[in-house]
Amino acid sequence: MSSVTVTLPDGSTLSVERGATVEDVAYEIGPGLGRDTVAGKLDGELVAKEAPIEEDVALEIVTEDSDAYRSVLRHTATHVFAQALQRLQPDANLAIGPYTDDGFYYDVANVDVEQDDLEAIEAEMREIIAADYDVERVERSRAEATEMYADNPYKLDVLEEEAAGEDPVTFYRQDDWEDLCKGPHVDSTGEIGAVSLLNVSAAYWRGDEDNDTLTRVYGTAFESEAELETFLEQREAAKERDHRKIGREMELFSIPDVTGPGLPLYHPNGTTVLRELEDYVDELNREAGYDFVETPHIFRTELWKQSGHYDNYVDDMFLLDVNDEEYGLKPMNCPGHATIFGQTNWSYRDLPVRYAENGKVYRKEQRGELSGLSRVWAFTIDDGHLFVRPDQIETEIESIMGMIFEVIENFDLTVEVSLATRPEKSMGSDEIWEQAESQLRSVLDSGGYEYDVEAGDGAFYGPKIDIGFQDALGRTWDGPTVQLDFNMPEQFDLTYVGSDNEEHRPVMIHRALYGSFERFFMVLIEHFDGKFPLWLAPEQVRILPVSDENLGYAHRVKNEFDGYRVDIEDRDWTVGKKIQQAHEDKVPYMIVVGDDEEDAGTVSIRDRKERELKDVSIAEFRTHLDGERDEKRTEPDFLE
Amino acid sequence: MSSVTVTLPDGSTLSVERGATVEDVAYEIGPGLGRDTVAGKLDGELVAKEAPIEEDVALEIVTEDSDAYRSVLRHTATHVFAQALQRLQPDANLAIGPYTDDGFYYDVANVDVEQDDLEAIEAEMREIIAADYDVERVERSRAEATEMYADNPYKLDVLEEEAAGEDPVTFYRQDDWEDLCKGPHVDSTGEIGAVSLLNVSAAYWRGDEDNDTLTRVYGTAFESEAELETFLEQREAAKERDHRKIGREMELFSIPDVTGPGLPLYHPNGTTVLRELEDYVDELNREAGYDFVETPHIFRTELWKQSGHYDNYVDDMFLLDVNDEEYGLKPMNCPGHATIFGQTNWSYRDLPVRYAENGKVYRKEQRGELSGLSRVWAFTIDDGHLFVRPDQIETEIESIMGMIFEVIENFDLTVEVSLATRPEKSMGSDEIWEQAESQLRSVLDSGGYEYDVEAGDGAFYGPKIDIGFQDALGRTWDGPTVQLDFNMPEQFDLTYVGSDNEEHRPVMIHRALYGSFERFFMVLIEHFDGKFPLWLAPEQVRILPVSDENLGYAHRVKNEFDGYRVDIEDRDWTVGKKIQQAHEDKVPYMIVVGDDEEDAGTVSIRDRKERELKDVSIAEFRTHLDGERDEKRTEPDFLE
Repeated sequence: MSSVTVTLPDGSTLSVERGATVEDVAYEIGPGLGRDTVAGKLDGELVAKEAPIEEDVALEIVTEDSDAYRSVLRHTATHVFAQALQRLQPDANLAIGPYTDDGFYYDVANVDVEQDDLEAIEAEMREIIAADYDVERVERSRAEATEMYADNPYKLDVLEEEAAGEDPVTFYRQDDWEDLCKGPHVDSTGEIGAVSLLNVSAAYWRGDEDNDTLTRVYGTAFESEAELETFLEQREAAKERDHRKIGREMELFSIPDVTGPGLPLYHPNGTTVLRELEDYVDELNREAGYDFVETPHIFRTELWKQSGHYDNYVDDMFLLDVNDEEYGLKPMNCPGHATIFGQTNWSYRDLPVRYAENGKVYRKEQRGELSGLSRVWAFTIDDGHLFVRPDQIETEIESIMGMIFEVIENFDLTVEVSLATRPEKSMGSDEIWEQAESQLRSVLDSGGYEYDVEAGDGAFYGPKIDIGFQDALGRTWDGPTVQLDFNMPEQFDLTYVGSDNEEHRPVMIHRALYGSFERFFMVLIEHFDGKFPLWLAPEQVRILPVSDENLGYAHRVKNEFDGYRVDIEDRDWTVGKKIQQAHEDKVPYMIVVGDDEEDAGTVSIRDRKERELKDVSIAEFRTHLDGERDEKRTEPDFLE
Repeated sequence: MSSVTVTLPDGSTLSVERGATVEDVAYEIGPGLGRDTVAGKLDGELVAKEAPIEEDVALEIVTEDSDAYRSVLRHTATHVFAQALQRLQPDANLAIGPYTDDGFYYDVANVDVEQDDLEAIEAEMREIIAADYDVERVERSRAEATEMYADNPYKLDVLEEEAAGEDPVTFYRQDDWEDLCKGPHVDSTGEIGAVSLLNVSAAYWRGDEDNDTLTRVYGTAFESEAELETFLEQREAAKERDHRKIGREMELFSIPDVTGPGLPLYHPNGTTVLRELEDYVDELNREAGYDFVETPHIFRTELWKQSGHYDNYVDDMFLLDVNDEEYGLKPMNCPGHATIFGQTNWSYRDLPVRYAENGKVYRKEQRGELSGLSRVWAFTIDDGHLFVRPDQIETEIESIMGMIFEVIENFDLTVEVSLATRPEKSMGSDEIWEQAESQLRSVLDSGGYEYDVEAGDGAFYGPKIDIGFQDALGRTWDGPTVQLDFNMPEQFDLTYVGSDNEEHRPVMIHRALYGSFERFFMVLIEHFDGKFPLWLAPEQVRILPVSDENLGYAHRVKNEFDGYRVDIEDRDWTVGKKIQQAHEDKVPYMIVVGDDEEDAGTVSIRDRKERELKDVSIAEFRTHLDGERDEKRTEPDFLE
């Protein structure tokens, strides 16, 4: 019998018989681990412990202590939901019910479920959990499964698509109820510590507007009530900070239906923040020796065929026909940069060549998935592409990681680093991939970065380092990436002349510091609850004259803050109302000027944390502001 | 008999009988003018003096002294060309032969004309000119014309389209030769002082790729040989300065076929120049109280229907289908800005609101008309839209004109101002148009601007001031515009609350300072012959170490020029070769550092005008540079 190689998370390898299950391998590592095994991850994909290993693969054993355990738990919670629903509404037709990053959902048909009904279903779910039914894996013949689902077109579709060619197929059973499912699941319903159904919405079957409209019920599950409680509190807090709400209140951006979904319009306040963010990365790029380039937004699809994006991304691309030729809005900036590089004759002495562009890209998300700035059709990446010699890779990646951390530290965000390795669908030889992955590991290890390995999550053209942000509410968002690419230089036939006078291939590095401006802007709005650091605030200082008599002095004071975004509140209001409005508008600092201040040639300072100091010298305050702004401090701290 | 009102260039009006000809009106003004009349301009369109006036119209009488006389002359030159061609190749089928800004062309079929044949045709043309044939206007019945052109599908098409419904139709005859034509023409072929045929290319009939491919012969004509000579010299100089050639040599931009026609890629050097240009207008906009906004590149076509662009521009728009809805790449930035304005409740105290965006727009030019940066598919406008109260119009337009002149004076370009009035296809009442035009006239008159009136050249939504640049070679290019718009605020139902607490319509002003960055960049490249002013130069200073021994000192010197774009030429070359290369690269200043300089702690300065000075203090040179850059002086003047 032939054997396959299994790579474990620590990088060690194991040779096992082809067809061995995840659980078999766990037992081989140790009987304790074997007994504790709940599921496995094969090349990053969560599978049942019974799943056979048929080829060389990266394997992570999932136990109760693994991060992935919660996903397994939630997968079982979807079954508990579906069973509860069918107890209450026996005619309900089940479609699919996956786990998600923060819970699960189940799409169902032929039901009558409104928000008000969730409580009753939840109560029924609690009964099923309390009964602590065993969850058993059952195999049935394909014919039997097809027979069972004669009246359920969705399950028949799943049999056709996801379970194509499988016979037998697997079900999971609890009590007298069962569901077509590949697993994995926890051992019994009682392992679910806490559940909550969150809301109901509509969804198209398979996300396709031409298909049936189904009812989608969202819920979540945790190991304990305490964890659920924390989650629900954070969820409430997040609603208060929803960037769409704050974006409207602060007039940062809008996405009106007349202009199109997923296509944000930035109002003056939002554009100010975006431009500050842009100026900052531009400055970092300039200091780090990047050259700026600018590429068009549409290209002949020939270019995407050359780069390989057409094969991998065409469904997400906006295509247009121009004089019977196919063009596409760019989903990526890299092929444009590779084309620019390719038009110059380079010597080894010229490398590394580093191009930067805050380039807008377009990806066609399903309309139903669009949401504020977090999922859009058009977004701008602070994109950088480096063309380097192989001996320059590690130095450049080190430098990029330094830039990323320098940026993120300005925003009080916590960082999560992961290394994403070769996916199933990929280009290039094994040797090239191994070399690339080992160079990234080496930079991370020698830099002392803590990181997870996300097996199989790399780009199709190379492995990458992914950076996630954790915001003030403990939520994690996708951030910048650093990607090695040995393939695109081949596709574009990029070369440089080495010291040996021969032609060589450069290596390409793709990187971003923020990632998408839209996504990052959204994270910042919610992370700071709209209370931006001084350097980012659309309005940095507001001057409040106590009465109209002090307007002249207010204007003279304003002139002392050249280079700052300062407004004078000259409406016919009381100072109290002016202060209240400035707080609502989240302005970092207020300067109050009345007769006393005018006589003394000083000002009174208030900040948005409701602190106050009278009789402040204008020069002293200005000096403080310069420091607070230039050092990008996150909170007004003059009055600390 | 009813009468119509004719408005003359000086603004005075005349009431004439409906159906009176251009010549009749000229005689009515004075018999001398009547006799001198060559042609007329009705609402800006050049017509024969026999053309009847059927409705209220702006009229300019064209005499030998008018600017438009040259166009009439060139129109006759096209006939001389066609006659000469048919003398040599009697089977030639004539399509159309219009005059252009700098000459004329004729599209012909069934001929064999190569570049080498032009001389012989030109000789034949000279004979026709020397013979000084009278040019006569002849009327023929439609039936007779159709019969005459039985074998010429192009002329039949002209009869169908341009001459639709006319009977009789007009011909112009000289000697025994004639051509279907509405005129105007000069009185005899001898009036043409000088002709030259320039080149041959291919063109589709009606510019449509589905039609026949014709042969297009370009030529030009002038009143005198001296004027032709000057034109040909400038044409040679322009070829040397062609921005496509310089763009390649200086690695400013490229338009490779693989990425698509009319879609420029900006390389680092070009992006540097563009960014400097952007930073400059951004700064001016900020100082003038503009707020920056950012709008998407695609919009639902609903928006273009609302703005009226869809009716007027749809043929030039890039359209795409997304989930069965029609979207378009934006051909204009204004509807996006109007949408942003419309989402806030404004008080009269908030106005004027001024939005600025360096926004990319897309217009589908015929592929054959694309050329370098002068005709592209995608270009960026330094667009500004103001929303003002009626009482603010004149002040704002004055301020905009001030900004435009401030910008242009930095580039040593000569400016031509014109006022473009109501076109035939337009929206809005007579009253609104008259009011708008009179406000623009008032600003131009009181500001002491010299200007022409381009009758009928306004936008469909309002009159405008057009600014043209005349470059170092005497050529004129379209530049910025200032447009008044009383219509879009109606279409978007834009309002503000007045001091009377009632809702009012703001007026919209569209303006640009450069116009299109692409066009302006092209003008600058050719105007400066790639020798950009210090502030724009991609590389501002190059340091040339005399030998490798001086490399360390070169780096120390470089550090003194922080904030400048400085490179060190460290190739293993002689100083002579280094200087030569710097001249080829058009670098404004060279700093030469050898042992003498290193010992003395000084530098030697050379400039691209081949001047030199030794033993210069670094601080002194740096101070000079700061002034030259910040004042945007156009030539290196340290060594003057």
